[in-house]
Amino acid sequence: MKIDILTLFPGMFDGFLHESIIKRALERGQVEIQVHDIRAYSKDPHKKVDDYGYGGGQGMVLMPQPIFDAVEDLRTENSKVLLMTPQGKTYNQEIAYDLTQEKHLIIICGHYEGFDERIRTLADMEISIGDYVLTGGELASMVITDSVVRLLDGVIAKDSHIYDSFHNHLLDYPVYTKPVDFRGMKVPEVLLSGHHQKIEEWRLEEQMKRTKERRPDLLEKR
Amino acid sequence: MKIDILTLFPGMFDGFLHESIIKRALERGQVEIQVHDIRAYSKDPHKKVDDYGYGGGQGMVLMPQPIFDAVEDLRTENSKVLLMTPQGKTYNQEIAYDLTQEKHLIIICGHYEGFDERIRTLADMEISIGDYVLTGGELASMVITDSVVRLLDGVIAKDSHIYDSFHNHLLDYPVYTKPVDFRGMKVPEVLLSGHHQKIEEWRLEEQMKRTKERRPDLLEKR
Repeated sequence: MKIDILTLFPGMFDGFLHESIIKRALERGQVEIQVHDIRAYSKDPHKKVDDYGYGGGQGMVLMPQPIFDAVEDLRTENSKVLLMTPQGKTYNQEIAYDLTQEKHLIIICGHYEGFDERIRTLADMEISIGDYVLTGGELASMVITDSVVRLLDGVIAKDSHIYDSFHNHLLDYPVYTKPVDFRGMKVPEVLLSGHHQKIEEWRLEEQMKRTKERRPDLLEKR
Repeated sequence: MKIDILTLFPGMFDGFLHESIIKRALERGQVEIQVHDIRAYSKDPHKKVDDYGYGGGQGMVLMPQPIFDAVEDLRTENSKVLLMTPQGKTYNQEIAYDLTQEKHLIIICGHYEGFDERIRTLADMEISIGDYVLTGGELASMVITDSVVRLLDGVIAKDSHIYDSFHNHLLDYPVYTKPVDFRGMKVPEVLLSGHHQKIEEWRLEEQMKRTKERRPDLLEKR
């Protein structure tokens, strides 16, 4: 999979691309990620990319020209263009799975003050990562990238995502590691029993209990 | 406000802390952010921080000792400890506003394979940024930090967040900037009219229309 990210702040991606799972996936060639500076596509002599919005009110608004030129430069017939905006479809694990089927994603990071409405016409899908407002779409684009790349073949241990929260619309079960007794808080006996069937039963029970307590809305989707 | 972030991947925060709004807020002293390596708190001779989970199944699980020691080192009576986990309360703009009232946040980034259940006892609040799974809590902690810091006094233009999406449970209205005609797509006449009252009416109408189309669930909260 190839991912092209369009942003006004390419430097924000430095840490993200050079640590942990994403770094490893890049090194292994499991994904190719390129971050593009929107400013490089500006035809303005001063490389301006935003201007005041018509009708007053808000601050600076991202202009259509640099984004149109950037997308048209990068897009092929296999590309899916995603626009990061609080007004988009709320992202979830099902969309993450769907996106793993794509060959090429182009992700447009919105601007903190807003972007020209005409930019929407470029997008195959508008995505919001949640009901809150960020200073820009950069973190949102990292969330999409991270959640999709970890589902690609070979990136994390095979089948380990079937234990994820939200898989089958259940939250995850509790996990414990050493020590058995930490300040009087003990690992549940059943996990030390070595009895696989009992462990499986306990885990499913805990998943149901936890989901019912914390996210009853998820159970309705089952 | 002070924010302490506990992570296994401090390098992931490099770009985030050195760009845009967060960088400016740090320089102006509007917020103080410190990123702490969980590994530095390990009492293990090899600085180990995770181990196999009891009962088999998943991979490595974050051990309680380094996290307890880190939180106890940083916590004061004014601290609020947030744990990033897909099993937490779903984050939204109201929680962001609530968190702006805090003096000190300690944010614990979860581990991609899971963290020992006993770590939950340290948290004042468990937060999920959405119904999807990330490789770790780092991006989630940046989302919290970014969305809260932008609401702090003086960080972005005064009162500009009353135009945000989700404020009053409405999505934002469309914005336009130059040129008036871009490839045949024109800025709506009303925005060029200079008639403030008509512009306000048009914008509210568009907000209602857009929210009804895209997020009817928000309107039920009004």
